[in-house]
Amino acid sequence: MRALVLGDGAPRVDRRPRPEAVRGETRVRVLLAGVCATDLALAQGYMGFKGVPGHEFVGLALDGPLEGRRVVGEINAGCGTCGCCRAGDPRHCESRSVLGILGRDGAFAEELRLPHGNLVEVPDGVDDDAATFTEPLAAALALLDCLGDARPERALVVGDGRLGLLCAWALADVGINVDLLGRHPERGAWAGERVRHMSRPLDDRPPPRRYPLVVEACGRTDAVARALAWTAPRGTLVLKTTGAEPVLLDLAPLVVDEIRLVGSRCGRFEPALAALAQGRLDPRALIEGRYPLEQAPLALEHAARGGVLKILVDITP
Amino acid sequence: MRALVLGDGAPRVDRRPRPEAVRGETRVRVLLAGVCATDLALAQGYMGFKGVPGHEFVGLALDGPLEGRRVVGEINAGCGTCGCCRAGDPRHCESRSVLGILGRDGAFAEELRLPHGNLVEVPDGVDDDAATFTEPLAAALALLDCLGDARPERALVVGDGRLGLLCAWALADVGINVDLLGRHPERGAWAGERVRHMSRPLDDRPPPRRYPLVVEACGRTDAVARALAWTAPRGTLVLKTTGAEPVLLDLAPLVVDEIRLVGSRCGRFEPALAALAQGRLDPRALIEGRYPLEQAPLALEHAARGGVLKILVDITP
Repeated sequence: MRALVLGDGAPRVDRRPRPEAVRGETRVRVLLAGVCATDLALAQGYMGFKGVPGHEFVGLALDGPLEGRRVVGEINAGCGTCGCCRAGDPRHCESRSVLGILGRDGAFAEELRLPHGNLVEVPDGVDDDAATFTEPLAAALALLDCLGDARPERALVVGDGRLGLLCAWALADVGINVDLLGRHPERGAWAGERVRHMSRPLDDRPPPRRYPLVVEACGRTDAVARALAWTAPRGTLVLKTTGAEPVLLDLAPLVVDEIRLVGSRCGRFEPALAALAQGRLDPRALIEGRYPLEQAPLALEHAARGGVLKILVDITP
Repeated sequence: MRALVLGDGAPRVDRRPRPEAVRGETRVRVLLAGVCATDLALAQGYMGFKGVPGHEFVGLALDGPLEGRRVVGEINAGCGTCGCCRAGDPRHCESRSVLGILGRDGAFAEELRLPHGNLVEVPDGVDDDAATFTEPLAAALALLDCLGDARPERALVVGDGRLGLLCAWALADVGINVDLLGRHPERGAWAGERVRHMSRPLDDRPPPRRYPLVVEACGRTDAVARALAWTAPRGTLVLKTTGAEPVLLDLAPLVVDEIRLVGSRCGRFEPALAALAQGRLDPRALIEGRYPLEQAPLALEHAARGGVLKILVDITP
C-alpha cells in the first residue's frame, strides 16, 4: 500500500506492506486524515519516530466487531495487562504504542490497525470531514477533566490556532467566558459568542488581568512563562502542547501563588462525537486545505506555514 | 526594642522603635521564634527584603481581643477589602503584607504587630517550644489540600530536612505510606511507622518506582526535574519550597503523562494546633539549637549549616 513515511531525510510517500491480521485488533481502511502539530514535530525529529505518522482519521473497519462501519479510533494502545490498562487507562500504559507517534504506524496510509476496543463508530449525521476532528476535539474537551467541579467565570486561551480554537470552544460550551489570545482576530467568532478575541500578539504587553484558568495551546516554548504570569493565585494553568525544548521557568511564583500547572493530552472520544452529532460545533470551517495521499509531504509543508488551520489528507481510493 | 535587622551588609541586632498601636491590629510580645529556610534566603537577598525577618513565633498578646493570652499568628495580612480578602483568603491578597517577609517587620524582635484576626490562642497543653512549630506544621498540612479526596497508598517526599520531615509526618498522619528521600537515615523514625527512609542521596540513581504523589521539600533547584521524573502518570508533584533560581524544565513529560505540578505555601493554623494539642506529633525533637536574640545572627549561621534541623531564637526578657 502507499503511505507517508518519516525516516532519514525528508518525509516521502512510499510503498509499505499492509498491516497483517493480529488477534484483538481491527484493520481499518483510512478515508481521511488530519495533519496535527505533533506530526510536524515528528517530521522534525520529535521522539525519534520512524514510520508512518498520522493519528487523526476516519476510516472503514475491514474486520473485527465493527466490520463495515465507519470508525474513528483512540490512539493509545495499551498492553492490556498492567495496572493502568486494567484500570481502564491504556493512555498511560508504560508499554503502550501510540498510533503514528510511538511504535505503531499511523493514518497517512491506505490502511492502519488498532485494538478493537479503540474504535468507535461514527454516527450517520457526522460526515467524514467533521469526523476527522474527533481526536483533536476529544483532546480539547479533556481540558474539562482538569477543572473538576470548578467552573471559573472567565478563562484565557493562549493561541488561536487549530488547538486553541477547539479549546476555546470546549470551555465556552460549558458556559465559561473565554478571552482568546492570538494574531487572528477574524477567528474568534467561530468558537461562539462567549469567546472574545484579544487580538494581541503574545510578545505584546500582558493582558490586563490574571485568570483563574489559563490554557496554553500555542505550542511556543516561551509562552509557558507568560501564561504562568497571567494565572491568578490558586488558579490553574493547563498545558496542551508539548515543546521539544526545555523551558527556563521561575517556579517561585507558582509556589507563592499556589498555582496548579496541569499537563493534558488525549481525551475520550464519546463526548467529542456527541458534540459533533448534536451540531454543537462545526469544525469543517477550520479546513484550509486538502491533499491526496501522494501529495502528503506538501500537506505537511502547508500545515507548517504560519497561521494555517486544518489541512486534511484524502486517502479514498 | 532590640531586633534582628536585614539590610545592607550582614544581619545584625539593632535598636528599633516598638510597633505603634494600629486600629484592627494586636501588638505581641515575642517569646520564641524559629529560623526557617525562607529567613536564610531573605538574608541572601531573596525578595529584596529589608527590616526584621522571622515568621515562626509564639508570643503574648499585649492588647486586642486576645490580650494577655499566648498566641501564634498567621503571617499573611490582607487589605481586608479586595476579592481575595472578602472570600476569606488574605493569603493571596495582592496588597498583602507578610510577617517578616514582605512589607511587615517580623518575629526576631521583642515585639511585632498583626491583624487581630491573624492571631490564634495556643492551647495550654502546647508549650512554647512546640507552639513555635505551628506555622511550618500548618504549611506541611496544607499539602493535604492539594490532594482533594484522593489518598494515594504511597507517596515520596524529597528532602529529610525541617520541612520534609513535617510533610512526611502530615501524609503518614492521614494513612499514606511515605518513602522519605534524603541523606539522614536516622531521621525517618521521628515521622512515624508509616515513613520508610530511603537513605539515598538525591544525586544517586532514581528510586525504583514512580509515585502518584511526590512532594519536593528539599529546596534544591535541581530537585524539581528529578521529582518530576519520579511522578507517575496522572500523578501530583507538590512544590513546597521556593528557589531563587529559575529552573530548566522539560515540560513534555508533564503533558504526555498528564501530571499536576502544584505550588503549596502556607496553611491554616487550627489543624496544626489541634495536632500539637492532641500529641499526634512532638516537634520538639527537631530542635537542635537555641540562641538569645542578641546572638540571632549566629542562629542564622547555625541554621544555614548542612543537615541542621530547627534552630530557635529565645526572646523572653
